[in-house]
Amino acid sequence: MGLKLHGLALSTCTARVATAIYEKGQDFELVAVNLTAGEHKQPSFLAKNPFGQIPALEDGDLTLFESRAITSYVAEKYKDSGHDLNRHNNLKEAALVKVWMEVESQTFHPIIAAIVYQHLIAPLFGQKTDQAVIDANLEKLKKILDVYESKLKSSKYLAGDFFSLADLHHLPYIYYFMKSPWTSVVNDRPHVKAWWEDISSRPSFKKVAEGMTIGQK
Amino acid sequence: MGLKLHGLALSTCTARVATAIYEKGQDFELVAVNLTAGEHKQPSFLAKNPFGQIPALEDGDLTLFESRAITSYVAEKYKDSGHDLNRHNNLKEAALVKVWMEVESQTFHPIIAAIVYQHLIAPLFGQKTDQAVIDANLEKLKKILDVYESKLKSSKYLAGDFFSLADLHHLPYIYYFMKSPWTSVVNDRPHVKAWWEDISSRPSFKKVAEGMTIGQK
Ligand SMILES: N[C@@H](CCC(=O)N[C@@H](CS)C(=O)NCC(=O)O)C(=O)O
Ligand SMILES: N[C@@H](CCC(=O)N[C@@H](CS)C(=O)NCC(=O)O)C(=O)O
Repeated sequence: MGLKLHGLALSTCTARVATAIYEKGQDFELVAVNLTAGEHKQPSFLAKNPFGQIPALEDGDLTLFESRAITSYVAEKYKDSGHDLNRHNNLKEAALVKVWMEVESQTFHPIIAAIVYQHLIAPLFGQKTDQAVIDANLEKLKKILDVYESKLKSSKYLAGDFFSLADLHHLPYIYYFMKSPWTSVVNDRPHVKAWWEDISSRPSFKKVAEGMTIGQK
Repeated sequence: MGLKLHGLALSTCTARVATAIYEKGQDFELVAVNLTAGEHKQPSFLAKNPFGQIPALEDGDLTLFESRAITSYVAEKYKDSGHDLNRHNNLKEAALVKVWMEVESQTFHPIIAAIVYQHLIAPLFGQKTDQAVIDANLEKLKKILDVYESKLKSSKYLAGDFFSLADLHHLPYIYYFMKSPWTSVVNDRPHVKAWWEDISSRPSFKKVAEGMTIGQK
């Protein structure tokens, strides 16, 4: 019995989980959830995630939700295959992975998600893009990426000289952000740019990115 | 060489870490960071956390920041002493702890933090409380706690029948929230109320709560 991933290939949170599964050399069955029809608010999906959001992962009798919890589970369950995503053999490195996973979740994510939402998602729902929200968050994003730039001068990846969940969790939102007119925020910072080019060219993510079609002409 | 916790006893994020350390039967030296004097934006603190926020933990030559990353490190480092906070011997239970840690961080925290900020913190800085922000977030909090209520009907704690980091991470903000006029949001939900009374009466948190003096008459 394999992994069943309930979600959508174009959704950032689904993409985060899919990338982690591929990094571990595993595969999954994608079970599409029709958000437009409100399938995620129906009892059968709410039994998987009572908050009614994708993604959810079924692994036999275990059902999980929250993308970052799922990637951590996948990293741990398949710790001996594929790429080591959580440095499970080194307490200090594992701790630094956790620190930078929290930076992504607490500090980076709310800012970049607000920009991507306004630029790419709002128009899909017939809403007007609020440029003031974008501008305010771009200023915050620049400050955050200044810290990343200086961190990435001293190590190749965020938690050290190894690609980990801390880097992986950034992939889906930066991918959509790079379809915006504000790519200079990344490209003007040479270490951030090199990091982004490196992590986004991993085979796991290139495969996932094929399904991330929002904003495609 | 013991643990050095840079922060403030009254700060929620510091309190989160302190509670986890006590749960593991460990102690720490609290190194006060003078936020009013802007000490957290000075080079010596920025070397510990480049984002300039408390808390930070020093454990020998390892320096960590982000409260939830620190508690996970503490749970793992001292896994064989004190209370088992991360179910390290059971992959499935450990995964459910992660799911509910993410629920706290992604869904619960932004909502309750907005209420506590408007009610208790803004006045400290001479800002006017924005009641519209409180009201909107109270509505969201009720919906979230409806899900908790139904979850806590089927298990004593969020991730199962065991107290874990998933519960612990909720303590500091609910503690300050219970000093507000809106305690019925918790007390009207019998399983949430019982859970709150249970987790807040653990010796670890009772000790930490003594230092959480914001809003005290
Ligand atoms: N913190 C959650 C967020 C999940 C989330 O925002 N999912 C979106 C799609 S990317 C969703 O289901 N939106 C529909 C809704 O919220 O109604 C995670 O990381 O899994
Ligand atoms: N996500 C961080 C948040 C830390 C945080 O918000 N710290 C506050 C005190 S509770 C702070 O340092 N505020 C001062 C500032 O941001 O300038 C964590 O969980 O450690």
